[in-house]
Amino acid sequence: MLTLHHLNHSRSFRILWLLEELKLAYGLEYQLVCHQRDKRTFLAPRALKDIHPMGKAPILVDDDKVLIESGFIIEYLLKYYDLNHQLQPTDDVQWQAYSFWLHFGESSMMPPLVMRLVMNAVATKSPIVIRPVAKAIRQKVEKMVISDTVRQSFGLLENHLQDKHWLAGSFSGADIQVYFTAKALQSRSGLDDYPNIQNWLMRCQARPAFEHAVATGGQLFA
Amino acid sequence: MLTLHHLNHSRSFRILWLLEELKLAYGLEYQLVCHQRDKRTFLAPRALKDIHPMGKAPILVDDDKVLIESGFIIEYLLKYYDLNHQLQPTDDVQWQAYSFWLHFGESSMMPPLVMRLVMNAVATKSPIVIRPVAKAIRQKVEKMVISDTVRQSFGLLENHLQDKHWLAGSFSGADIQVYFTAKALQSRSGLDDYPNIQNWLMRCQARPAFEHAVATGGQLFA
Repeated sequence: MLTLHHLNHSRSFRILWLLEELKLAYGLEYQLVCHQRDKRTFLAPRALKDIHPMGKAPILVDDDKVLIESGFIIEYLLKYYDLNHQLQPTDDVQWQAYSFWLHFGESSMMPPLVMRLVMNAVATKSPIVIRPVAKAIRQKVEKMVISDTVRQSFGLLENHLQDKHWLAGSFSGADIQVYFTAKALQSRSGLDDYPNIQNWLMRCQARPAFEHAVATGGQLFA
Repeated sequence: MLTLHHLNHSRSFRILWLLEELKLAYGLEYQLVCHQRDKRTFLAPRALKDIHPMGKAPILVDDDKVLIESGFIIEYLLKYYDLNHQLQPTDDVQWQAYSFWLHFGESSMMPPLVMRLVMNAVATKSPIVIRPVAKAIRQKVEKMVISDTVRQSFGLLENHLQDKHWLAGSFSGADIQVYFTAKALQSRSGLDDYPNIQNWLMRCQARPAFEHAVATGGQLFA
Protein backbone atom coordinates (compact mmCIF):
# COMPACT_ATOMS: atom_id res chain seq x y z
CA MET A 1 0.00 0.00 0.00
CA LEU A 2 1.20 3.50 -0.86
CA THR A 3 1.11 6.25 1.78
CA LEU A 4 1.88 9.85 0.94
CA HIS A 5 3.00 12.20 3.69
CA HIS A 6 1.72 15.53 2.44
CA LEU A 7 2.67 18.94 3.78
CA ASN A 8 0.40 21.86 2.94
CA HIS A 9 1.80 24.42 0.46
CA SER A 10 4.76 22.20 -0.44
CA ARG A 11 6.33 20.10 -3.17
CA SER A 12 4.33 17.09 -1.97
CA PHE A 13 1.38 18.56 -3.90
CA ARG A 14 3.15 17.18 -6.98
CA ILE A 15 2.96 13.63 -5.71
CA LEU A 16 -0.61 13.99 -4.47
CA TRP A 17 -1.60 15.18 -7.94
CA LEU A 18 0.28 12.32 -9.63
CA LEU A 19 -1.37 9.78 -7.32
CA GLU A 20 -4.75 11.24 -8.30
CA GLU A 21 -3.80 10.91 -11.98
CA LEU A 22 -2.89 7.24 -11.38
CA LYS A 23 -6.11 6.72 -9.44
CA LEU A 24 -8.17 8.04 -12.38
CA ALA A 25 -6.14 6.09 -14.94
CA TYR A 26 -5.76 2.77 -13.12
CA GLY A 27 -7.89 2.90 -9.97
CA LEU A 28 -4.71 3.00 -7.86
CA GLU A 29 -5.47 3.40 -4.15
CA TYR A 30 -3.29 5.27 -1.66
CA GLN A 31 -3.42 6.64 1.85
CA LEU A 32 -2.87 10.31 2.57
CA VAL A 33 -1.37 11.65 5.78
CA CYS A 34 -1.61 15.44 6.01
CA HIS A 35 0.97 17.43 7.96
CA GLN A 36 0.62 21.13 8.66
CA ARG A 37 3.27 23.83 8.54
CA ASP A 38 3.74 25.93 11.66
CA LYS A 39 1.45 28.92 11.13
CA ARG A 40 4.04 31.42 12.37
CA THR A 41 7.39 30.02 11.14
CA PHE A 42 5.98 28.20 8.08
CA LEU A 43 8.35 25.32 8.95
CA ALA A 44 7.50 21.64 8.52
CA PRO A 45 6.57 19.82 11.75
CA ARG A 46 9.12 17.56 13.45
CA ALA A 47 6.84 14.58 12.74
CA LEU A 48 8.29 14.41 9.19
CA LYS A 49 11.76 13.75 10.62
CA ASP A 50 10.41 10.66 12.37
CA ILE A 51 9.44 9.27 8.96
CA HIS A 52 12.58 10.31 7.02
CA PRO A 53 15.69 12.00 8.49
CA MET A 54 15.63 14.83 5.90
CA GLY A 55 12.36 15.97 7.50
CA LYS A 56 10.97 17.38 4.25
CA ALA A 57 7.92 16.67 2.10
CA PRO A 58 7.13 14.77 -0.06
CA ILE A 59 7.68 11.40 1.60
CA LEU A 60 6.11 8.40 -0.12
CA VAL A 61 5.98 5.08 1.73
CA ASP A 62 5.59 1.97 -0.44
CA ASP A 63 5.46 -1.03 1.91
CA ASP A 64 8.92 -1.04 3.54
CA LYS A 65 10.40 1.65 1.29
CA VAL A 66 10.49 5.29 2.39
CA LEU A 67 11.07 7.50 -0.64
CA ILE A 68 11.94 11.20 -0.93
CA GLU A 69 12.81 13.66 -3.72
CA SER A 70 10.07 14.81 -6.13
CA GLY A 71 11.85 13.88 -9.37
CA PHE A 72 12.73 10.40 -8.17
CA ILE A 73 9.27 9.71 -6.72
CA ILE A 74 7.70 10.74 -10.03
CA GLU A 75 10.02 8.35 -11.93
CA TYR A 76 9.34 5.60 -9.39
CA LEU A 77 5.55 5.90 -9.53
CA LEU A 78 5.56 5.99 -13.32
CA LYS A 79 7.91 3.00 -13.63
CA TYR A 80 5.92 0.74 -11.32
CA TYR A 81 2.35 2.03 -11.50
CA ASP A 82 1.90 3.61 -14.95
CA LEU A 83 2.12 0.35 -16.81
CA ASN A 84 0.44 1.59 -20.01
CA HIS A 85 2.66 4.68 -20.20
CA GLN A 86 -0.27 7.08 -19.93
CA LEU A 87 1.76 9.68 -18.03
CA GLN A 88 5.23 9.20 -19.51
CA PRO A 89 6.25 9.24 -23.16
CA THR A 90 7.73 6.27 -24.99
CA ASP A 91 8.66 8.15 -28.17
CA ASP A 92 12.33 9.26 -28.20
CA VAL A 93 11.83 12.98 -28.85
CA GLN A 94 9.12 13.20 -26.19
CA TRP A 95 11.12 11.14 -23.69
CA GLN A 96 13.97 13.61 -24.11
CA ALA A 97 11.66 16.53 -23.33
CA TYR A 98 10.16 14.62 -20.40
CA SER A 99 13.51 13.74 -18.83
CA PHE A 100 14.98 17.19 -19.44
CA TRP A 101 12.12 19.07 -17.77
CA LEU A 102 11.93 16.59 -14.90
CA HIS A 103 15.55 17.36 -14.01
CA PHE A 104 15.67 21.01 -15.07
CA GLY A 105 12.49 22.01 -13.21
CA GLU A 106 13.92 21.11 -9.82
CA SER A 107 17.71 21.35 -10.31
CA SER A 108 17.98 24.60 -12.28
CA MET A 109 14.66 26.47 -12.14
CA MET A 110 13.82 25.99 -8.48
CA PRO A 111 17.03 26.84 -6.55
CA PRO A 112 17.15 30.55 -7.52
CA LEU A 113 13.49 30.88 -6.49
CA VAL A 114 14.32 29.37 -3.09
CA MET A 115 17.30 31.70 -2.74
CA ARG A 116 15.06 34.67 -3.56
CA LEU A 117 12.59 33.56 -0.88
CA VAL A 118 15.37 33.27 1.70
CA MET A 119 16.87 36.67 0.82
CA ASN A 120 13.43 38.29 0.98
CA ALA A 121 12.85 36.80 4.43
CA VAL A 122 16.26 38.02 5.59
CA ALA A 123 15.70 41.52 4.18
CA THR A 124 12.22 42.07 5.53
CA LYS A 125 12.68 40.40 8.93
CA SER A 126 16.03 41.94 9.87
CA PRO A 127 16.17 44.34 12.84
CA ILE A 128 15.25 47.79 11.57
CA VAL A 129 18.73 49.29 12.04
CA ILE A 130 20.37 46.84 9.67
CA ARG A 131 17.45 46.51 7.26
CA PRO A 132 18.84 48.93 4.63
CA VAL A 133 22.06 46.91 4.46
CA ALA A 134 20.09 43.67 4.36
CA LYS A 135 18.04 45.01 1.45
CA ALA A 136 21.20 46.10 -0.37
CA ILE A 137 22.61 42.59 0.08
CA ARG A 138 19.38 41.06 -1.22
CA GLN A 139 19.67 43.27 -4.29
CA LYS A 140 23.29 42.22 -4.81
CA VAL A 141 22.45 38.51 -4.62
CA GLU A 142 19.44 39.04 -6.88
CA LYS A 143 21.74 40.64 -9.47
CA MET A 144 24.63 38.16 -9.02
CA VAL A 145 22.83 34.85 -9.30
CA ILE A 146 19.03 35.07 -9.33
CA SER A 147 17.38 37.40 -11.83
CA ASP A 148 19.26 36.38 -15.00
CA THR A 149 18.90 32.68 -14.28
CA VAL A 150 15.17 32.99 -13.55
CA ARG A 151 14.61 35.04 -16.70
CA GLN A 152 16.58 32.59 -18.84
CA SER A 153 15.02 29.41 -17.46
CA PHE A 154 11.45 30.68 -17.59
CA GLY A 155 12.18 32.10 -21.03
CA LEU A 156 13.16 28.60 -22.09
CA LEU A 157 9.88 27.24 -20.72
CA GLU A 158 7.86 30.02 -22.38
CA ASN A 159 9.48 29.27 -25.76
CA HIS A 160 9.04 25.54 -25.35
CA LEU A 161 5.30 26.02 -24.76
CA GLN A 162 4.92 28.29 -27.81
CA ASP A 163 3.48 25.50 -29.94
CA LYS A 164 2.75 22.82 -27.34
CA HIS A 165 -0.09 21.90 -25.05
CA TRP A 166 2.14 19.90 -22.69
CA LEU A 167 5.86 19.70 -22.02
CA ALA A 168 6.43 16.30 -23.62
CA GLY A 169 3.76 15.43 -26.17
CA SER A 170 0.80 14.40 -24.07
CA PHE A 171 0.45 15.28 -20.38
CA SER A 172 3.20 13.65 -18.27
CA GLY A 173 5.02 13.64 -14.94
CA ALA A 174 7.21 16.45 -16.30
CA ASP A 175 4.21 18.81 -16.35
CA ILE A 176 3.59 17.95 -12.69
CA GLN A 177 7.23 18.57 -11.76
CA VAL A 178 7.51 21.96 -13.48
CA TYR A 179 3.99 23.10 -12.52
CA PHE A 180 5.09 23.54 -8.90
CA THR A 181 8.11 25.57 -9.97
CA ALA A 182 6.10 27.87 -12.23
CA LYS A 183 3.44 28.38 -9.53
CA ALA A 184 6.20 29.27 -7.08
CA LEU A 185 7.29 32.09 -9.39
CA GLN A 186 3.71 33.13 -10.14
CA SER A 187 2.75 33.35 -6.47
CA ARG A 188 5.65 35.72 -5.73
CA SER A 189 6.26 37.76 -8.86
CA GLY A 190 3.43 36.99 -11.25
CA LEU A 191 3.88 35.65 -14.77
CA ASP A 192 2.90 38.72 -16.80
CA ASP A 193 5.72 38.21 -19.30
CA TYR A 194 4.91 34.55 -19.83
CA PRO A 195 1.50 34.08 -21.51
CA ASN A 196 2.28 30.56 -22.73
CA ILE A 197 3.20 29.47 -19.21
CA GLN A 198 0.01 31.03 -17.85
CA ASN A 199 -2.13 29.15 -20.36
CA TRP A 200 -0.33 25.89 -19.65
CA LEU A 201 -0.88 26.36 -15.89
CA MET A 202 -4.60 26.77 -16.57
CA ARG A 203 -4.65 23.60 -18.66
CA CYS A 204 -2.96 21.78 -15.75
CA GLN A 205 -5.48 23.15 -13.28
CA ALA A 206 -8.42 22.04 -15.42
CA ARG A 207 -7.44 18.37 -15.15
CA PRO A 208 -9.85 16.39 -12.96
CA ALA A 209 -6.96 14.80 -11.01
CA PHE A 210 -5.60 18.26 -10.22
CA GLU A 211 -8.98 19.32 -8.87
CA HIS A 212 -9.16 16.17 -6.70
CA ALA A 213 -5.68 16.90 -5.35
CA VAL A 214 -6.70 20.43 -4.35
CA ALA A 215 -9.90 19.10 -2.74
CA THR A 216 -7.97 16.66 -0.53
CA GLY A 217 -4.63 18.43 -0.02
CA GLY A 218 -5.53 22.10 -0.21
CA GLN A 219 -4.47 24.90 -2.56
CA LEU A 220 -0.78 24.85 -3.43
CA PHE A 221 -0.08 28.46 -2.47
CA ALA A 222 -2.11 30.43 0.03
CA MET B 1 29.07 13.17 -33.55
CA LEU B 2 29.02 14.23 -29.90
CA THR B 3 30.62 17.51 -28.85
CA LEU B 4 31.01 18.48 -25.20
CA HIS B 5 31.41 22.13 -24.30
CA HIS B 6 33.47 21.93 -21.15
CA LEU B 7 34.10 24.75 -18.68
CA ASN B 8 37.02 24.38 -16.27
CA HIS B 9 36.09 23.78 -12.60
CA SER B 10 32.43 23.16 -13.41
CA ARG B 11 29.67 20.58 -13.57
CA SER B 12 30.70 19.71 -17.12
CA PHE B 13 33.48 17.61 -15.59
CA ARG B 14 30.74 15.07 -14.90
CA ILE B 15 29.93 14.69 -18.59
CA LEU B 16 33.59 14.64 -19.63
CA TRP B 17 34.16 11.79 -17.17
CA LEU B 18 31.07 9.90 -18.38
CA LEU B 19 32.18 10.29 -22.01
CA GLU B 20 35.57 8.84 -21.02
CA GLU B 21 33.80 5.91 -19.32
CA LEU B 22 31.82 5.32 -22.53
CA LYS B 23 34.98 5.63 -24.61
CA LEU B 24 36.69 2.94 -22.52
CA ALA B 25 33.62 0.69 -22.51
CA TYR B 26 32.51 1.09 -26.12
CA GLY B 27 35.16 3.06 -27.98
CA LEU B 28 32.75 6.01 -28.23
CA GLU B 29 34.37 9.05 -29.84
CA TYR B 30 33.57 12.66 -28.99
CA GLN B 31 34.91 16.14 -29.52
CA LEU B 32 35.86 18.37 -26.62
CA VAL B 33 35.64 22.17 -26.71
CA CYS B 34 37.24 23.74 -23.64
CA HIS B 35 36.00 27.10 -22.34
CA GLN B 36 37.78 29.03 -19.61
CA ARG B 37 36.29 30.91 -16.69
CA ASP B 38 37.26 34.55 -16.31
CA LYS B 39 40.28 34.49 -14.00
CA ARG B 40 39.05 37.43 -11.92
CA THR B 41 35.25 37.00 -11.78
CA PHE B 42 35.24 33.20 -12.17
CA LEU B 43 32.25 33.64 -14.52
CA ALA B 44 31.65 31.53 -17.62
CA PRO B 45 32.55 33.23 -20.92
CA ARG B 46 29.80 34.67 -23.13
CA ALA B 47 30.67 32.09 -25.80
CA LEU B 48 28.55 29.53 -23.94
CA LYS B 49 25.45 31.71 -24.44
CA ASP B 50 25.96 31.51 -28.18
CA ILE B 51 25.63 27.73 -27.94
CA HIS B 52 22.72 27.59 -25.46
CA PRO B 53 20.79 30.59 -24.05
CA MET B 54 21.29 29.48 -20.42
CA GLY B 55 25.03 30.12 -20.93
CA LYS B 56 26.08 27.44 -18.45
CA ALA B 57 28.15 24.26 -18.69
CA PRO B 58 27.74 21.40 -19.43
CA ILE B 59 26.41 21.68 -22.97
CA LEU B 60 26.42 18.52 -25.04
CA VAL B 61 25.76 18.73 -28.77
CA ASP B 62 24.56 15.53 -30.45
CA ASP B 63 24.13 16.29 -34.16
CA ASP B 64 21.33 18.88 -34.23
CA LYS B 65 20.43 18.56 -30.54
CA VAL B 66 21.86 20.96 -27.96
CA LEU B 67 21.46 19.45 -24.49
CA ILE B 68 21.93 20.96 -21.03
CA GLU B 69 21.39 19.85 -17.40
CA SER B 70 23.77 17.27 -15.85
CA GLY B 71 21.13 14.78 -14.70
CA PHE B 72 19.37 14.76 -18.05
CA ILE B 73 22.59 14.51 -20.07
CA ILE B 74 23.66 11.53 -17.95
CA GLU B 75 20.32 9.80 -18.56
CA TYR B 76 20.50 10.65 -22.26
CA LEU B 77 24.04 9.32 -22.76
CA LEU B 78 23.25 6.13 -20.85
CA LYS B 79 20.01 5.52 -22.75
CA TYR B 80 21.52 5.90 -26.20
CA TYR B 81 25.19 5.00 -25.79
CA ASP B 82 25.41 2.54 -22.88
CA LEU B 83 23.68 -0.24 -24.73
CA ASN B 84 24.95 -3.06 -22.48
CA HIS B 85 23.98 -1.25 -19.30
CA GLN B 86 27.53 -1.10 -18.01
CA LEU B 87 27.01 2.24 -16.27
CA GLN B 88 23.36 2.00 -15.22
CA PRO B 89 21.65 -0.72 -13.22
CA THR B 90 18.88 -2.92 -14.55
CA ASP B 91 18.01 -4.54 -11.22
CA ASP B 92 15.04 -2.86 -9.45
CA VAL B 93 16.67 -2.11 -6.10
CA GLN B 94 19.78 -0.73 -7.77
CA TRP B 95 17.77 1.29 -10.30
CA GLN B 96 15.95 2.91 -7.38
CA ALA B 97 19.25 3.90 -5.77
CA TYR B 98 20.56 5.12 -9.13
CA SER B 99 17.54 7.28 -9.91
CA PHE B 100 17.29 8.63 -6.37
CA TRP B 101 20.91 9.79 -6.20
CA LEU B 102 20.81 11.18 -9.72
CA HIS B 103 17.99 13.51 -8.71
CA PHE B 104 18.93 14.09 -5.07
CA GLY B 105 22.58 14.93 -5.80
CA GLU B 106 21.67 17.97 -7.88
CA SER B 107 18.19 18.97 -6.64
CA SER B 108 18.68 18.68 -2.85
CA MET B 109 22.39 18.37 -2.05
CA MET B 110 23.76 20.99 -4.41
CA PRO B 111 21.54 24.09 -3.92
CA PRO B 112 22.54 24.77 -0.27
CA LEU B 113 26.21 24.50 -1.27
CA VAL B 114 25.65 27.07 -4.01
CA MET B 115 23.82 29.33 -1.56
CA ARG B 116 26.74 29.04 0.88
CA LEU B 117 29.17 29.99 -1.89
CA VAL B 118 27.08 33.05 -2.78
CA MET B 119 26.71 34.16 0.85
CA ASN B 120 30.45 33.75 1.42
CA ALA B 121 31.19 35.88 -1.63
CA VAL B 122 28.75 38.55 -0.43
CA ALA B 123 30.18 38.54 3.11
CA THR B 124 33.82 38.69 2.17
CA LYS B 125 33.55 41.08 -0.78
CA SER B 126 31.24 43.66 0.80
CA PRO B 127 32.59 47.17 1.43
CA ILE B 128 34.35 47.11 4.77
CA VAL B 129 31.81 49.33 6.56
CA ILE B 130 28.94 46.92 5.98
CA ARG B 131 30.99 43.72 6.25
CA PRO B 132 30.00 42.93 9.86
CA VAL B 133 26.31 43.10 8.91
CA ALA B 134 26.96 41.06 5.77
CA LYS B 135 28.67 38.40 7.88
CA ALA B 136 25.79 38.37 10.36
CA ILE B 137 23.37 37.86 7.46
CA ARG B 138 25.51 35.05 6.10
CA GLN B 139 25.36 33.39 9.51
CA LYS B 140 21.60 33.81 9.66
CA VAL B 141 21.10 32.23 6.21
CA GLU B 142 23.55 29.45 7.12
CA LYS B 143 21.46 28.67 10.20
CA MET B 144 18.06 29.11 8.51
CA VAL B 145 18.47 26.93 5.44
CA ILE B 146 22.02 25.66 4.84
CA SER B 147 23.80 23.86 7.67
CA ASP B 148 21.05 21.44 8.73
CA THR B 149 20.24 20.46 5.15
CA VAL B 150 23.91 19.91 4.28
CA ARG B 151 24.46 17.83 7.41
CA GLN B 152 21.35 15.74 6.78
CA SER B 153 21.94 15.13 3.09
CA PHE B 154 25.63 14.27 3.46
CA GLY B 155 24.73 12.13 6.49
CA LEU B 156 22.38 10.21 4.23
CA LEU B 157 25.18 9.68 1.69
CA GLU B 158 27.64 8.67 4.42
CA ASN B 159 25.19 6.08 5.77
CA HIS B 160 24.36 4.80 2.30
CA LEU B 161 28.06 4.18 1.63
CA GLN B 162 28.56 2.35 4.94
CA ASP B 163 28.45 -1.06 3.27
CA LYS B 164 28.72 -0.17 -0.41
CA HIS B 165 31.47 0.42 -2.91
CA TRP B 166 29.26 2.42 -5.27
CA LEU B 167 25.92 4.22 -4.95
CA ALA B 168 23.87 1.72 -6.95
CA GLY B 169 25.46 -1.73 -7.05
CA SER B 170 28.26 -1.38 -9.56
CA PHE B 171 29.67 1.98 -10.69
CA SER B 172 27.03 4.10 -12.48
CA GLY B 173 26.08 7.56 -13.69
CA ALA B 174 24.78 8.27 -10.17
CA ASP B 175 28.34 8.12 -8.79
CA ILE B 176 29.37 10.67 -11.41
CA GLN B 177 26.47 12.98 -10.56
CA VAL B 178 27.04 12.95 -6.78
CA TYR B 179 30.85 12.98 -7.03
CA PHE B 180 30.79 16.59 -8.16
CA THR B 181 28.50 17.56 -5.28
CA ALA B 182 30.67 15.84 -2.67
CA LYS B 183 33.84 17.39 -4.10
CA ALA B 184 32.17 20.81 -3.92
CA LEU B 185 31.67 20.33 -0.18
CA GLN B 186 35.13 18.84 0.31
CA SER B 187 36.88 21.70 -1.49
CA ARG B 188 35.21 24.28 0.79
CA SER B 189 34.70 22.63 4.17
CA GLY B 190 36.50 19.31 4.05
CA LEU B 191 34.86 15.95 4.69
CA ASP B 192 36.40 15.09 8.07
CA ASP B 193 33.12 13.77 9.45
CA TYR B 194 32.48 11.58 6.42
CA PRO B 195 35.07 8.78 6.09
CA ASN B 196 32.86 6.63 3.86
CA ILE B 197 32.38 9.50 1.44
CA GLN B 198 36.13 10.17 1.41
CA ASN B 199 36.88 6.54 0.57
CA TRP B 200 34.26 6.50 -2.16
CA LEU B 201 35.72 9.68 -3.69
CA MET B 202 39.11 7.96 -3.80
CA ARG B 203 37.59 4.94 -5.51
CA CYS B 204 36.04 7.27 -8.10
CA GLN B 205 39.35 9.04 -8.65
CA ALA B 206 41.17 5.74 -9.21
CA ARG B 207 39.06 4.88 -12.25
CA PRO B 208 41.03 5.12 -15.51
CA ALA B 209 38.25 7.17 -17.16
CA PHE B 210 38.40 9.68 -14.30
CA GLU B 211 42.13 10.06 -14.80
CA HIS B 212 41.67 10.59 -18.53
CA ALA B 213 39.03 13.25 -17.81
CA VAL B 214 41.42 15.13 -15.51
CA ALA B 215 44.19 14.84 -18.10
CA THR B 216 42.04 16.44 -20.83
CA GLY B 217 39.72 18.75 -18.85
CA GLY B 218 41.82 19.71 -15.84
CA GLN B 219 41.33 19.20 -12.10
CA LEU B 220 37.76 19.73 -10.93
CA PHE B 221 38.60 22.20 -8.17
CA ALA B 222 41.70 24.35 -8.12
